[in-house]
Amino acid sequence: MAKTLDLSLYLVLDPVLCHGIDGMVKTVQIVVANGVTVVQLRAENQFHHRQWYQAALALKAALSHTPVPLIINDYVDVALAADADGVHIGQADLPAQVVRQLIGADKWLGLSISNQQQLDEVPWSVIDYLGIGPIFPTTSKKNAAPALGIEQLAKLMTQRQCPAVAIGGINETNIEGVIQTGINGVAVVSAICGQVNIQQATAQLVKQIGQVKNKGMTL
Amino acid sequence: MAKTLDLSLYLVLDPVLCHGIDGMVKTVQIVVANGVTVVQLRAENQFHHRQWYQAALALKAALSHTPVPLIINDYVDVALAADADGVHIGQADLPAQVVRQLIGADKWLGLSISNQQQLDEVPWSVIDYLGIGPIFPTTSKKNAAPALGIEQLAKLMTQRQCPAVAIGGINETNIEGVIQTGINGVAVVSAICGQVNIQQATAQLVKQIGQVKNKGMTL
Repeated sequence: MAKTLDLSLYLVLDPVLCHGIDGMVKTVQIVVANGVTVVQLRAENQFHHRQWYQAALALKAALSHTPVPLIINDYVDVALAADADGVHIGQADLPAQVVRQLIGADKWLGLSISNQQQLDEVPWSVIDYLGIGPIFPTTSKKNAAPALGIEQLAKLMTQRQCPAVAIGGINETNIEGVIQTGINGVAVVSAICGQVNIQQATAQLVKQIGQVKNKGMTL
Repeated sequence: MAKTLDLSLYLVLDPVLCHGIDGMVKTVQIVVANGVTVVQLRAENQFHHRQWYQAALALKAALSHTPVPLIINDYVDVALAADADGVHIGQADLPAQVVRQLIGADKWLGLSISNQQQLDEVPWSVIDYLGIGPIFPTTSKKNAAPALGIEQLAKLMTQRQCPAVAIGGINETNIEGVIQTGINGVAVVSAICGQVNIQQATAQLVKQIGQVKNKGMTL
């Protein structure tokens, strides 16, 4: 796998919001045709390992003829079993150095941070990208850390030693301020998963990302 | 690792009953000196991956100078990360064939079954031992299948193509009937974890196992 990752619009799939594995597959089919650049499977505590595995296989098949990578949240064994493209971990998961040893050099590894201290402890040499959040209050993740806000995001983001994606409560009403910080991409959950018109919701976010980036280039 | 596994008295550690990681380590130190032959870490949904990993490392250290193997329930990534001696899976976990590929030939792999149909589908060539249960009603495992009873255990047990251990509600009041079926071993949770006198509880079970086996030999 070539080591270039387009984080522009990163979709975190939620099996509840998407109404199960079939719903996640349908969502993925729509979003990859409309500009989503990374797909992550995240199932909190709803899934047994077998369901994680079945979901990962189904999503891998749905993404097989696209350039969009499949990232598995937390469950390194599921990522290995389904030969996914990478793993995303948080502060309560296996340590990043350990995960890198398990997945090898060719898989993507992302790490979430929620504050300055966690950023100070990031093992930059073993990760490919950083997740920073939650930026705004979120209902999609249980036990989320306090919302950072745009100012804190900007402060943390400028210290990154690898590409970073912002996550947490981001939607069409606030995405432009996030992109204006200069961050590499935004991750969304409920701004796409479970939306009545997924195609339109995706296209709207892509349009807003493009507008801010184009405006930035003319400054 | 030599491929011989003594299933006689198989302890499934419960972090709640043992009062956390330190309590599990203390429990292990006592039981391995008193006849427990296998230790499994099982944490249902109480643990994040990081806690699983920390617990596995602590238990591995506690077992390092003993012949007692450490088996990890469900979490193949934790087993790999901590270099545990094996994995135990159930029907809702990664498929046994997939787990065998992930852990390689030298680690133990156990599989739980709860009925005839599941036994008929056991991939014997990839597993090392079978868990059969629950034998009696249990409070240690959420969403456990209906209790099999001794008669069903005996019927399933005789069809095994590898060693088997019985699990589920087994304690000093009913262990003798289980051993009398001729099964290779018994697994216990609350009969040891959280007992006021763990040494005495373990010794009592070991004594009963020995008595039934000796009686069997004189018949």
